[in-house]
Parts: sequence; structure tokens; C-alpha cells
Amino acid sequence: MYEILKTINSPADVKKLNFEQLKTLAADIREALFNRLTKIGGHFGPNFGIVETEIAMHYVFNSPRDKFVFDVSHQSYPHKMLTGRKNGYIDDKHFKEDSGYTNPGESEHDLFNVGHTSTSISLASGLAKARDLKGGKENVIALIGDGSLSGGEALEALDFVGSELKSNLIIIVNDNQQSIPEVHGGLYQNLTELRKTKGKATNNFFKTLGLDYIYEENGNDIQAMIKVLQKVKNIDHPIVVHINTQKGKGYKPAEENREAWHWCMPFNKETGIAKVRFPAESYTALTAGYIMNKAAQDKDFVAITPSMPALGGLTPDMRGKLGKQYIDVCIAEEHAIAMASGIAKAGGKPLVFTGSTFIQRTYDQISQDVCINNNPITVVLNFASFDSLTDVTHLGIFTMAAFSTIPNLVILAPPSKEEYLNMLDWSVDQQEHPVMIMMPGNQVTSRPAETDYSKINTFKVEQTGEKVAILALGDFYQRGEELSGKVKSELGFTPTLINPRFASGVDEQLLTDLQQNHQLVITLEDGILEGGFGQKVATFYSDKDMKVKTYGLKKEFYDRYNPQELLKQLGMTTEQILLDVKSLVK
Amino acid sequence: MYEILKTINSPADVKKLNFEQLKTLAADIREALFNRLTKIGGHFGPNFGIVETEIAMHYVFNSPRDKFVFDVSHQSYPHKMLTGRKNGYIDDKHFKEDSGYTNPGESEHDLFNVGHTSTSISLASGLAKARDLKGGKENVIALIGDGSLSGGEALEALDFVGSELKSNLIIIVNDNQQSIPEVHGGLYQNLTELRKTKGKATNNFFKTLGLDYIYEENGNDIQAMIKVLQKVKNIDHPIVVHINTQKGKGYKPAEENREAWHWCMPFNKETGIAKVRFPAESYTALTAGYIMNKAAQDKDFVAITPSMPALGGLTPDMRGKLGKQYIDVCIAEEHAIAMASGIAKAGGKPLVFTGSTFIQRTYDQISQDVCINNNPITVVLNFASFDSLTDVTHLGIFTMAAFSTIPNLVILAPPSKEEYLNMLDWSVDQQEHPVMIMMPGNQVTSRPAETDYSKINTFKVEQTGEKVAILALGDFYQRGEELSGKVKSELGFTPTLINPRFASGVDEQLLTDLQQNHQLVITLEDGILEGGFGQKVATFYSDKDMKVKTYGLKKEFYDRYNPQELLKQLGMTTEQILLDVKSLVK
Repeated sequence: MYEILKTINSPADVKKLNFEQLKTLAADIREALFNRLTKIGGHFGPNFGIVETEIAMHYVFNSPRDKFVFDVSHQSYPHKMLTGRKNGYIDDKHFKEDSGYTNPGESEHDLFNVGHTSTSISLASGLAKARDLKGGKENVIALIGDGSLSGGEALEALDFVGSELKSNLIIIVNDNQQSIPEVHGGLYQNLTELRKTKGKATNNFFKTLGLDYIYEENGNDIQAMIKVLQKVKNIDHPIVVHINTQKGKGYKPAEENREAWHWCMPFNKETGIAKVRFPAESYTALTAGYIMNKAAQDKDFVAITPSMPALGGLTPDMRGKLGKQYIDVCIAEEHAIAMASGIAKAGGKPLVFTGSTFIQRTYDQISQDVCINNNPITVVLNFASFDSLTDVTHLGIFTMAAFSTIPNLVILAPPSKEEYLNMLDWSVDQQEHPVMIMMPGNQVTSRPAETDYSKINTFKVEQTGEKVAILALGDFYQRGEELSGKVKSELGFTPTLINPRFASGVDEQLLTDLQQNHQLVITLEDGILEGGFGQKVATFYSDKDMKVKTYGLKKEFYDRYNPQELLKQLGMTTEQILLDVKSLVK
Repeated sequence: MYEILKTINSPADVKKLNFEQLKTLAADIREALFNRLTKIGGHFGPNFGIVETEIAMHYVFNSPRDKFVFDVSHQSYPHKMLTGRKNGYIDDKHFKEDSGYTNPGESEHDLFNVGHTSTSISLASGLAKARDLKGGKENVIALIGDGSLSGGEALEALDFVGSELKSNLIIIVNDNQQSIPEVHGGLYQNLTELRKTKGKATNNFFKTLGLDYIYEENGNDIQAMIKVLQKVKNIDHPIVVHINTQKGKGYKPAEENREAWHWCMPFNKETGIAKVRFPAESYTALTAGYIMNKAAQDKDFVAITPSMPALGGLTPDMRGKLGKQYIDVCIAEEHAIAMASGIAKAGGKPLVFTGSTFIQRTYDQISQDVCINNNPITVVLNFASFDSLTDVTHLGIFTMAAFSTIPNLVILAPPSKEEYLNMLDWSVDQQEHPVMIMMPGNQVTSRPAETDYSKINTFKVEQTGEKVAILALGDFYQRGEELSGKVKSELGFTPTLINPRFASGVDEQLLTDLQQNHQLVITLEDGILEGGFGQKVATFYSDKDMKVKTYGLKKEFYDRYNPQELLKQLGMTTEQILLDVKSLVK
């Protein structure tokens, strides 16, 4: 097992192998991928499809002198195995040492922490430019998947390097005919035409941008890949190496269902079935239910996603049913938001959904295209909690703070299933406000909720009490309830418990009223404190006689943390907060 | 004078004219443009070049039933004159009624407030999608300049509509062979090839994205434009109408120097000379001086701008001298930031400069490409003050708050010339932090400053006092000084006066020390309060016995305001703050 892979301690060891051994190495790498992915999950299809390419890259080039940049870097596992990190794959007790993305902290062969798409060409062009300023001669290679090509940052970079960078830059376009779901957009028709003509079509997107171009049909053939990379090595201008690969290659279920196997949970290799059982009810599934019902009832409604249908729970079947009421813009978040603004302006009812971390790409579109125009779009964000994705590149904890700097935008944070669905109902139908809804990150809970949110920034008092007011936002409401219970049982009085619902402003009347019989206001939020909800409350009281204690995350790039441990470190457990309350309340 | 234009009260009046009269109308419009622009300034070249096209648009289509979307909308003046707003151009006392951009508040013929580039195709595709959902038949027309095409949002949209929108959408690409300065990027070589071949080149960027395409050489000929627009009217799929026009047409100085005449101050028509004298010293000119010196001394240094050389004071001559140490990426902010990160990673020293409002497009790139990787790039922002640009689409007041939600980013706000230059020196040479520097918005002032900013979040006490501490950030430092003087003279004690320098965090030690002999902390900042500097200070003290009063702008889309009036409305004049101090200090 891992006969050849075990001999690989650095790229130098790859260069010693003959072609037969390289093929065995590829088989070893796939076995090692199975070993890790069946046990802890991760990105499946992108890695299985790129094994041969990354072997060839390390065979032909000299990393770290030659510089590799991996787009999204969710396909960098084979590269990691070839650069001294095989134990993260073949040895279970070392799994945790390797992140699921490139990471300069792990190895000099990784140049950037990357997790968002469409960045590799820009980053690589910067490495190339610095090389040119310094008179260096190394190769710079960006590896980008076809799915990532549709993002604005990648398109801007292709346009730039096509005429402005007159030196070595090798852009490997890994065309596996798939984004996360199926691809959408004119560019993909051109890639199809190029594949069909083996790269010879006169209609060539890359060439129109001034780029040199070469096609390799057999991207999963190590010898073919070595040959084509040797051809472009040390080239003196930018070139696109368009390669055809098979996503998920080497595992039949993944080859046959590329969408389902883009990413996997731990699974049984024989059956292909995940070892983890999902709860029957989830906010994602509730979202899908809402979308399907609403679309059936209201022909003006349209659901839009930048290639993240699963984050709205939409299966291929459901998407088919939605027909023209569903738009996947491919990875193009900016376009998704601006198009939604246009739809709303013309009387449509757009709901855009994606991950919290990805909406960061649209700060300007939300501000300019949407909010200055006050067009009533609804944005729903999944993975918006400290307790969902814990990779440094995928944290959903910055969104509420960042986007609550935008006037007119109403950010809603529901604490329960009923409130989430009522907010969706209200938001999609109203015509007054752009709205962003943070999908709760915890398990689905149930509690009664209002149906009308048109009085912006009206907080809801769920329990009237004294001395201490707890403002527990969104999916931290349950923590507020727990704290309230402890205050009652341990301190002997009933605190006021408030469900703010609105994250982007404060209820000035309510906060004023609280001054009558409260000494301390506690804020709890599932996001960073700086710029967040609690700071708005603290500032409201800053020239008054009210103490405020804010609880939330620090402004920090946390990486692969244990969420519960993190809460403890931050002094945010119910017990810890209770101690603070004791010391602050007379 | 204005013989025909005076008869135009709506687009219906345009349709009544014969070709001779239409030509007179074009001449009238240019006269009206002169009338306004010589007196109050505005966008010159874009409007002079597009007169014939917009006449033809209103001749052929039926606005507002047919829907026009203007990219950036700084070329919408002729359109405004044709839609009931001619008085804003021919009658001096009505100038203020018309903004310099499209504005739905002015007319039903304007669909969006627009001021940032590259948004029109996305917005228009949304109008088209809503039309299709509702079964409408109107034409949707986006007018976009060649300079705007390089932005990610526009490229994403072109890719999307090329295959996904299977209905009417007419994209007029106004090719005047100019961005704000000269164009850069591979796309422009293709446009050149298309112009040279009268649209017949097989190498066609738009067609590779699946778009239909038609070329019109005489974009400044009304009859030719009417003909081509009639051809595409009611088309059943998206098409690009590539037109060749002359930027600044009809005014020789503008035809000959398209960069200088993109935008103008009030000027003398005979001489072409601006009526306004600029101060001899400005932060913009200081920036240019820094860039030229640094580049000459340090071969690793490179200045980068997304088409905004003037915001760094760089003339065409200076750019020529900088050679490969200057990069204009064209309008492509995302690429500019990510490339800078790559340059910094490889040991170069990148300085990116642009306008504060435009950096909003790079929230994700600053976060992911730069700050997670902690690559030491320097970003310098012009127009970062409430007192620079006052159009709703160009406000620089959100940046400090929005970007101070990003970990690792150091935001510096200098109050003087010395401090600005010292911060530049320090930032570009250090290797530890990504840095953003807010260029002061007031006149250049002089005061001694430190040269080392490596102790992040260390505030500088400029005057030690008692009772009241004034934290006056960046270009509001002078307001703090003035307030300090008033407190001394009118309240009879010396307050502490602090120059925070860092906008992205607080000096916890100093704030702790202030508790010894201060009752009140005042914060002053040139940006919105929500998420801003003052809220960080207020929150630091929220569970302590210190009163904090924060002064800054509200989270609001202000539009064409009088800056001094606004300060008064917000209670931020020195006199008003002094009253607050009197009531809060015992």
C-alpha cells in the first residue's frame, strides 16, 4: 500500500520516477485520498480529477522556486502529498495537520491561504510582476478550474495579463465541464467548442483577450501532461494551457454524479453512502421548501444563486421544476446581486442565496446597485454562524458587521424556524427595503414569531424583567434564554429577555425605556463584535448611566477551531457570563 | 439659441423631427452642455461623445416603456435634456435640479442611481428577466463605455447573458478608445481589431461568450445610429451593438486631450482654462511626489491604480517615467488588490491608490487575498472625506467602518502632511501588515509626526490634560484642536487631546489610563459612526464609569449636501460639541 507515495518526501523524489512508477504514484494518491476522505470528508471530485496534472506539475517544474497558485485550492491535496505532507492522507493520526486548502503555514510550496474562487490568476500575476521587477527567471503557474473562470476577479485578471504582462505566466485551465453544480454562461459554450475542435476553433475566448493558448485533451494522462507542460516551461509570455480532465476520476459514483461528489462527508467506499446522518429538519431544507412553495404560488418570484444551489437545499429535480424561476449565474456573485436589483426594480421578487463568506464579494453591489436604489431584494445567507464552517477562508462571522455599514439594508437574524419563515415571507413580498437574512447556524428550534417586520429596528421583548436586559440576537437567542434561566435560578430575579430580530440598527425607544429599571444590558451575537450589533447598543448608552457588556467573536481569522472551545476562550459560556453579571449588578 | 432643444419636452418630441432638425438638436445639446459645464463643471468627454447616440436612442425606442440603463451614468446628460430636464442645462438657475448621474428621483426615464462603473449589463439583465417573468415585450438597452467593460461585474454579466438570457437585451458598447486615462488590457486589442475590420474580425470577444454582435463605425452620425438601432429593436436575444465614437467630440481641446477632459471644473470656453485655481499644495500632489521619489530609489516599489492615476497625482509624463514601476490595470479593482498581494508575497512593495468609494469593490480581495495572508500591501485612498465628493454614489465615508471589520488590516488616518508622508514611508517599507491610508480631505496642514507605526493601535497624546479627552481622528484632528482651545477658554481647564492615528483598533492601555482623571471621552471621525472608530472606543468603556460621546456621520446615503451645513445638522460644530461637553462634565 502506498508503495511509491511512501518514497516521496519532496518534489525531487517525483522527478526520479519512470512513467510506470508515476502511474503507480497516481494510484497511490487516489488510495490516500480515499483514506482521508472516507474518514473525515473534504473536497472529492476536484482532487480525484487533478492527480495526474499535479504529478506532472511537480515532475516538470521546480517548486518552490517555480511558483504554483491553486485557485480555491480545494484541489491541492495531491500537491500536498508530493510536498512532504503525505502523512496527512495516509496516516489517520496526522489528518489534522493538513488543512483542506493551501496554507503557507504548512509548507513553502504553498504560497497563499486560498478558499474563495477566481483569485489565482491575479495572485499569480503579482508573483510574476515581482519576479520581473527583481530580474528573476522562475515560472509562475496558476491552476484554475473552469467553474472558477466565471468570477469577476478571474475575468479581470485574464484581461489584464492578456496584454499587460509580457513575461512568463502559465495558466492551467482545468476544464472538467463542471462548476459545483452544472456550468452556466457563454464562456462554457466556448470551452465546449474548444474541446470539440481539440483547441482549434477560431472562436477562442482566451485569444480574444490577447492570450497565447494550447490545448491538451488528455489531462488525466501523466505523460501527455508532462509533455505539454515541458512545452510551455520557461515561456516568455502568458499562456493558457486548456486541459480536459474528468472530475472525480477513479471512483464511479463520483464520475457519474459530479455535483454530489464535489465535496463529501465521511462515507463508505463500497456503497458511496455518507456515514453521517443529517437531522431530518434543517434551515437549508426549510429554505428549499419556502422557495418551491413560493415559486408555485407567485410567478414574479425567482431564486438566484451563484453556483450554490445546495445552500438553498435545491436538488437538481427541484431546479428543474423551478424552470425559469431559478437562475444559477455560475460563480458570479456581483452579477447575481446587481441582476436581482434590476429584477426588483421591474417588479420581480428576487431571492438570492449563497454562503455568508461569499457575499463579501458583493459589498459594492449591495451598496450601490441595491441599497442606494433601495430596491427590495432578499439575500439569504447560509453558513452565517461561528458554528458552521471553521476554515479560515470560509468564516461567516464578518458579514453582519461589514454589511451593517450600508444604509437602507435591513439585516434580519431569526432565532427560530417560525421566525425564519415569516421573515422570508415578509421580505420577499414587501417593496420597501433590501433585506439580508442570516440563516441560523444551530439546530432548528420552534417558537412563535411575528409576521410583520415593516417597523424596522423594532426589537421584541420576549420576557419582561428587571435589573438586567439580555439582547440575544438570532441563533444566539437560545443562549440568551439559557442565561436568563440561570440568572433567575442563581441570582433570584427575572431579567428582561429580548429578541432583537434586526441586526442592522437599534430600537432606540426600547433601549431608552430599559433605563427605568435596568442597570446592565447584555448583548449576544453570532459574529464579530467590531462593527457588530453589540457595539451599536453600547454606543447608544455611552453617554448614559447604563452598563453594557457585549459578547461576540473577536475580529480575528480563526482557523479550524473547536466552536465550543472557542466560546470558552472568549468567556462566552453561560457560566462565564453569569459571573460577569454577578460582578456588575448591585 | 437652443432653437430645437427648446421644443423638446419629452422623447415624443424627438420623434417628430426630421434629420436636419435632429442635427440641429445635437448642436443645441452641445451648446447646452457648454453652458452648464463651463459654469459648474462635470463630466465632459463622455457627454460630448454620446450626443448623437442618445438622440438616436430616444428616436428609435420608447422610453420609459423601453428601458435605458446608463453605465456609470456620467454620460446621461443628453438623455436628461431629452426627457424633460433641459432646464438643468440651458437655464443657470435650474442647474442644481439635475444631478450628474441618472436619478429615479428626477424622472421616470432614469431607472437607477448609478455612479460606479461596470454595472449596467447586470442591472439591465435583471430588468429583462423581470420582463420575461411578467410576459412583457419592451426593449431593454444598456449603454456601456469601453472603459467600463474591464470591470468584473460587467464581465460576469456578459458571460451570463451570452448564454442564459434568451430574450431581448441590447448592449451598446460605446467604444471611444479611452477609459479615464488610456485603456489597458487584452480586451482593448480586440476592440481595436474589430474597429479596424469594421466588426468583421473572426477573433471576437463578444461572440466567444455566445453574444450576437453588430458594428457601427459612425457612432457620431445620427442617421447611422438610428439605422443600426432600428435593426436591433425588438430583437429576441441579447446583442452587442459596438459603436465607434469620439470622446469629447465638438470641442477641440477635449478631442485632443481625452484624459484631461474626461471631467472638468468650470472653465473658459475660449481658452479651455479652468476658472478655479487649485491650492499649490495638496495631498494628491504629495502622493505623486512620494511615488516618484520612492520609485527612483527602490526598484521593488510599484504603484498600481485601477484607472485613477489622477487620484495619485500622476500625470502622463510621470507615468512614462515610472515605466514598469507603474501599473494601470484599467477599471479592475479586484485584480489590482489581488495582484498587489502577489507582488508583496514575492518581495515587491506595492502601493495601490484609488478613490475611497471605489475600494468598496474589493472587500473580499482585501479580506481573502490580502489580509488572511497578511501580505504587506499599502492602499492609499483619495476622496475619503465627507468634505470631498458629495454625490450619493461617490461618498468616501463608509470605508473606514466597513474595512475595519477585517482582521490584520491596519487603517491609518493621518492629520498632517508630515504624518501622511511618514505613514507612507513606513507602510511601504514594512513587511508585517496590510495597510490602508486615508488621505486627508482638508487643506494640507503641517505638524511634527512620528516615523514608526509598528506598534499597532498606539494612539499619540498630543496634549495632556484632565476631565475631558478628545480623540480626534485623521483630518478631524484640527477640529479636535479647535474644540480643545474652546474648552480651555470657555470652561477653564485643559482637556487631553489625542491623535489616534490608527482607525482600525483602540489603544487599550491609553484608554485604561484615561480613567484616572477623565470623566468624558469625545471621539471625532470623518466617516460614519456605525462600525466606526468611536464605537470601538464607546464599547471599550461600556462596562466602566466613563462617559463617551461619539461624533461622526450617520449611516445614510447623503446626496449633494453642503458639508458645513451637514455638520451643523449633525450637531458637530465646535460650538455644538462644547454645549454637550458643558452638560456632561461636572
